[in-house]
Amino acid sequence: MTEQSGFRLLKTCAGARVGELATPHGPVATPVFLPVGSQGAVKTLTPEEVKDIGFKMVLANTYHLYLRPGIEVVAKMSGLHKFMGWDGAILTDSGGYQLFSLAALCRASDEGVVFRSHIDGSEHFLTPELVVQYQEALGADIIMVLDECSAYGDSLERVREAMLRTHRWAERCKKALKRGDQALYGIVQGGVFPELRRQSVEYLTSLGFAGYAIGGLSVGEPKTQTLALVEEVVALLPQDKPRYLMGVGSPEDIVEGVARGIDIFDSALPTRVARNGALFTWQGRRNIRNTAFSQMDQPLVPDCRCYTCRTFSAAYLQHLFKSEELLALRLATIHNLYFIHTLMDRIRNAVLDGTFNAFRDNFWASYQPTDEGARVSQKQKWLRSRRQL
Amino acid sequence: MTEQSGFRLLKTCAGARVGELATPHGPVATPVFLPVGSQGAVKTLTPEEVKDIGFKMVLANTYHLYLRPGIEVVAKMSGLHKFMGWDGAILTDSGGYQLFSLAALCRASDEGVVFRSHIDGSEHFLTPELVVQYQEALGADIIMVLDECSAYGDSLERVREAMLRTHRWAERCKKALKRGDQALYGIVQGGVFPELRRQSVEYLTSLGFAGYAIGGLSVGEPKTQTLALVEEVVALLPQDKPRYLMGVGSPEDIVEGVARGIDIFDSALPTRVARNGALFTWQGRRNIRNTAFSQMDQPLVPDCRCYTCRTFSAAYLQHLFKSEELLALRLATIHNLYFIHTLMDRIRNAVLDGTFNAFRDNFWASYQPTDEGARVSQKQKWLRSRRQL
Repeated sequence: MTEQSGFRLLKTCAGARVGELATPHGPVATPVFLPVGSQGAVKTLTPEEVKDIGFKMVLANTYHLYLRPGIEVVAKMSGLHKFMGWDGAILTDSGGYQLFSLAALCRASDEGVVFRSHIDGSEHFLTPELVVQYQEALGADIIMVLDECSAYGDSLERVREAMLRTHRWAERCKKALKRGDQALYGIVQGGVFPELRRQSVEYLTSLGFAGYAIGGLSVGEPKTQTLALVEEVVALLPQDKPRYLMGVGSPEDIVEGVARGIDIFDSALPTRVARNGALFTWQGRRNIRNTAFSQMDQPLVPDCRCYTCRTFSAAYLQHLFKSEELLALRLATIHNLYFIHTLMDRIRNAVLDGTFNAFRDNFWASYQPTDEGARVSQKQKWLRSRRQL
Repeated sequence: MTEQSGFRLLKTCAGARVGELATPHGPVATPVFLPVGSQGAVKTLTPEEVKDIGFKMVLANTYHLYLRPGIEVVAKMSGLHKFMGWDGAILTDSGGYQLFSLAALCRASDEGVVFRSHIDGSEHFLTPELVVQYQEALGADIIMVLDECSAYGDSLERVREAMLRTHRWAERCKKALKRGDQALYGIVQGGVFPELRRQSVEYLTSLGFAGYAIGGLSVGEPKTQTLALVEEVVALLPQDKPRYLMGVGSPEDIVEGVARGIDIFDSALPTRVARNGALFTWQGRRNIRNTAFSQMDQPLVPDCRCYTCRTFSAAYLQHLFKSEELLALRLATIHNLYFIHTLMDRIRNAVLDGTFNAFRDNFWASYQPTDEGARVSQKQKWLRSRRQL
């Protein structure tokens, strides 16, 4: 699998790594953040805008595309790249997380997953083999095994059961592969239990995958625990394969993830909070609706080179939000994604310069993180309420 | 006023005219359609996108900008052009129509208009002098007098009363002018009564304005009546001044308006129906949600050169609409505005070539208009219900 992983480690510095992923749609420098386009579009943006910001890879979701427009529609349109007008790299998630969090009803057995669509309640059945087949039809550059996600608070026994099933499914996914040009990543599960995480890494690395994702984190557990678990898992993973921390995302979590050896991130957070009017600055998030911006002739982040800050004042952006103009959502999305892209650039440069520790200290000297507690517990509550085991 | 109107008539053909408006922000070829950006943004689009389609002038609304963000905020940001990032020409409507249709409560006296904001119910008072002062502060290239709008179905007496007040206000607006670099247009009122329309034209032309708008049409009366009234009014207007048919809009109404000598149009229709998934084709409007498009690998209008049709299949556009992706609204808006811009180009070329009649016949040979009856009566109902006389 090593040759298929297409990963070259170029430099390490204080736990952080810089590398390069080779994909059929061009090279991708790591650490990298993937903008989320679950339904085949990064919310509010055209592919050109995502590219202009500087991104080389985006994420799409097999669960969403399976339900709508249907895998066969995308396949008929010559695959996902052509369908969504994106000629960069794509990573498709298997939809494991969405099955267990978003579907109206979801029952897992060894055979596969029976679930009801969150859109129309229709019943569906997915297996590890089907999920691989669908991802081969979509044609992403990196594809993911089907995994069973446990919820924060589940007992060790229950988490172990889900993990062991994830292992059996991972093996079947690997065997089901027909195309040779896509990189298949395994997903480490095991909840908040270090011993289970260790077993999961051991099993998956014994199978051998092109890359390894860490799933089931940032779902309600305290942030210190998330980071400790990332550290333990990364320590067990092979140096020569990319490591992907799924669903993480805020500027502060990215910096800390990189410091623990993570290469790939994805999260809807930057784009979602943008649509709520929360814009990233090097001091933390700012709510554009704040009175302080109502007559601010300058851009929100004066030295920011994103289209939004180069073109409009903070006062205008606030006006668009208050007037419920759809343009507001685009402009805020562009800013937040540009911010994250700049962050990744600065991180890579710091690692290459051997100054990552100084960069990290400097980041924390100015950055005031937002308390995400309320949001996470809301997400967790929703995760639990949707699960019907 | 002639020199201030900045209008050069270049060619006429079968009632249709081609001309050029000189504005402080560059020349504008007529007949022209103005995309509507009431709140200082053409819905869903950046100024660059509006410009890239080819538009040289947009419309904004004094009523909306007065309420939010406030005239003084825009003035502090060096005026509307800078505020909204648009370096082309701008026409601001006075907000007369919005006062009588959108405000929560509206009472007109000779002095001015008392109304309640549709946003927060706060009470405000506007006079002709204030409306001119505000439009001078906004700094548009073309500004409009304050007019009182009657509703379709109002008695002749009532319409006459509103018209006479509009005349007195028009005179006060003209007297209130302080800046010399903006073109002030008068607004012909008089409802569906030809005799009142005649009086209105006579009075306004005796005052002398840089251009003449026809207000209070397309508000519920049958389309044949609208066009007959346009014809009668245009026949009385001076040849050397631009004529602006306010709030009109659909491809078919533009073709018929041009055929009757109209030079300027504005309407929210192309962008509003786009957001509902109705896309213009040379055969009429098409609903992108139609099953016929669900697996259509080609663009909706295969020979269309707009960004949307050059980049995406009809199937993808349908997918975005069904998935409620905000990108859908942008792509449909771009297509409809591009269509209207192309229509205006073709109209101008036909007039210049002396083949406007053939163009018009050819347009109607393929174009199937959509019945707007239901929508208009809804608008009329809403216009009536909001008026508190």
